[in-house]
Amino acid sequence: MSCENALVHGGDIYTDRGLPLGVRLCDFSANLNPLGMPPAVREAAVSAVSASEAYPDPLCRELRAALAAQYGIPAGRIVCGNGAADLLYRLVWAVKPASGLVQAPSFAEYALALQNAGAKVQYAPLPPDFRPGEELPRAVGAGTGVVFFCNPNNPTGISAPRGYVRALAEKCRAAGALLLVDECFLDFIEGGEEKTAVPLLAEFENLLVLKAFTKMYAMAGLRLGYLLCGSDAVAEQVSHSGQAWSVSTPAQAAGLAALGIPDYPARTRAFLAKERPLLANALRQCGAEVFPSEANYLFFRWPDEHLPEKLLRRGFLIRSCGNYPGLDGRYNRIAVRTREENAAFAAALLDITRKGD
Amino acid sequence: MSCENALVHGGDIYTDRGLPLGVRLCDFSANLNPLGMPPAVREAAVSAVSASEAYPDPLCRELRAALAAQYGIPAGRIVCGNGAADLLYRLVWAVKPASGLVQAPSFAEYALALQNAGAKVQYAPLPPDFRPGEELPRAVGAGTGVVFFCNPNNPTGISAPRGYVRALAEKCRAAGALLLVDECFLDFIEGGEEKTAVPLLAEFENLLVLKAFTKMYAMAGLRLGYLLCGSDAVAEQVSHSGQAWSVSTPAQAAGLAALGIPDYPARTRAFLAKERPLLANALRQCGAEVFPSEANYLFFRWPDEHLPEKLLRRGFLIRSCGNYPGLDGRYNRIAVRTREENAAFAAALLDITRKGD
Repeated sequence: MSCENALVHGGDIYTDRGLPLGVRLCDFSANLNPLGMPPAVREAAVSAVSASEAYPDPLCRELRAALAAQYGIPAGRIVCGNGAADLLYRLVWAVKPASGLVQAPSFAEYALALQNAGAKVQYAPLPPDFRPGEELPRAVGAGTGVVFFCNPNNPTGISAPRGYVRALAEKCRAAGALLLVDECFLDFIEGGEEKTAVPLLAEFENLLVLKAFTKMYAMAGLRLGYLLCGSDAVAEQVSHSGQAWSVSTPAQAAGLAALGIPDYPARTRAFLAKERPLLANALRQCGAEVFPSEANYLFFRWPDEHLPEKLLRRGFLIRSCGNYPGLDGRYNRIAVRTREENAAFAAALLDITRKGD
Repeated sequence: MSCENALVHGGDIYTDRGLPLGVRLCDFSANLNPLGMPPAVREAAVSAVSASEAYPDPLCRELRAALAAQYGIPAGRIVCGNGAADLLYRLVWAVKPASGLVQAPSFAEYALALQNAGAKVQYAPLPPDFRPGEELPRAVGAGTGVVFFCNPNNPTGISAPRGYVRALAEKCRAAGALLLVDECFLDFIEGGEEKTAVPLLAEFENLLVLKAFTKMYAMAGLRLGYLLCGSDAVAEQVSHSGQAWSVSTPAQAAGLAALGIPDYPARTRAFLAKERPLLANALRQCGAEVFPSEANYLFFRWPDEHLPEKLLRRGFLIRSCGNYPGLDGRYNRIAVRTREENAAFAAALLDITRKGD
């Protein structure tokens, strides 16, 4: 097999790791909603398989109309994709920037997409506390084609202060650059509705907001994301970039069903408000430095580089952040999972700390 | 809505065409297997929805292993995609050719993909009988990056004579060009197994063969295609081009199930051998010039340009080929459908011929 290095992300539960018989792998490496896929979403996807002999609607009309109503944005400024990652590639191929700017550390697909489209990647390193500051706006220049800003950031879970995105969008507009704000995890954080860049779309033609169904509705295997655009022109460019039928029929149906459960994000945030601090405390008690994530995952530094392998022996898969630019193998990211899974994870951490192995 | 011109293909059953109440649209515009989605494929996709909370396997390991066994090709030379069209884009994004060569008429996504990747598109017009001849090999030159050859061709259904693809592959190799042979419809034609370019993959590093599950297993809404590559290097390039998780979990499961029904293509060919001539005769009796398609669709010239609208009023959607380079609105393509649907279609043709409207 020639493609093993495709595995730069979390969520790889498919690689055979030779675990002892009976050890079930528990995935803390993928940032999916611990409440799981809502039954209505599952049922909609199952029903849609029967409608999947035909090609999917290339324009995702029903889904875009529902999103347009939810956000108060014209449907013509919404583009749906085969997961949010699909839209990153379609954007860079539509725009073909000579260069793009990303934070370090941040979600790896921004840089990979830029490289795929032949663009130069410029990194703006975050400060040691990983709180977004002047490093990103300061790096925006005349040559910057696209800026990717992840809010809250992945892997840190830290969001930008209010006013930050507006200032960044202004800086980008002055430089003639597009700004993509990735809000795939924003609905997981408290006060996210006050931090979203969506209202700025009416003011900034150079702005794009990326969102996903994948994480909030735990439907990563179905693939569905969408891009909200500040201009008709960019929306049209992206919708014509890549194949005509990128979103499957089950994914479109699942997305529509998800929009019919408006309280799911709030229920998820309430659950996270209880579980995230417990998990953070368990990490701290074992000697980890835990950064102040607001999202459905935690970012921390462990005293040594060997935590992922020790946890794997106990059946837990976590996301080592050693392959992010600027980080090393002591940095890790874990998802907040269910009560039972989090308790089992905390017990495994204690066991590792006691035994040292 | 800003994206209506995405609808350059057949299969658009979602546009509201203001049909009279009670007229059900019968889709002859999409080339899907008239036998429909096999129950085992449907069941596999439905079951896989439950496994779709997690990310899909980015490497499609089980599916690629099954394809490797079926074709006797290393799994490392197989790349799966979100439908065959996804792989066209990922190929041109990976290779970034300065220019690409396509037949005219042929499947529109080749030229669209090339344009998306910033490549110049060169067209080699087919002769008036649409039988592939010297026009394509003759056009291959030092500047040609990629050649797209559709066998049998879409929309004509006509396949190349034996030896044609080998000679074309040699011409491309000498010119330093990649050759992609699109065999998405080859399994529908009699003697397809003698015409496939798959055995040539062992000889030609510059060769790629594109195949789809979409059409044969009538699972267009689930999206699944694959690329068989003549070299590890190209396979690796394509697999790293575009996002990591392009194939959904239900699509991977459906593909595996489809490979477990080895007689489905033969059963389909037997059905087509009976139905295609009946439908062709019905067209001829009404004054159409029908070209000798070997596939699950028919390509014909109608005396005037108004057939699609007349059929639509009667509830039949067909593919007008007026937007193919080199064709006009008298050219159309229809799928071979079920016995009942074909009979109803033939009756509608007679009705049109009688009434003239």
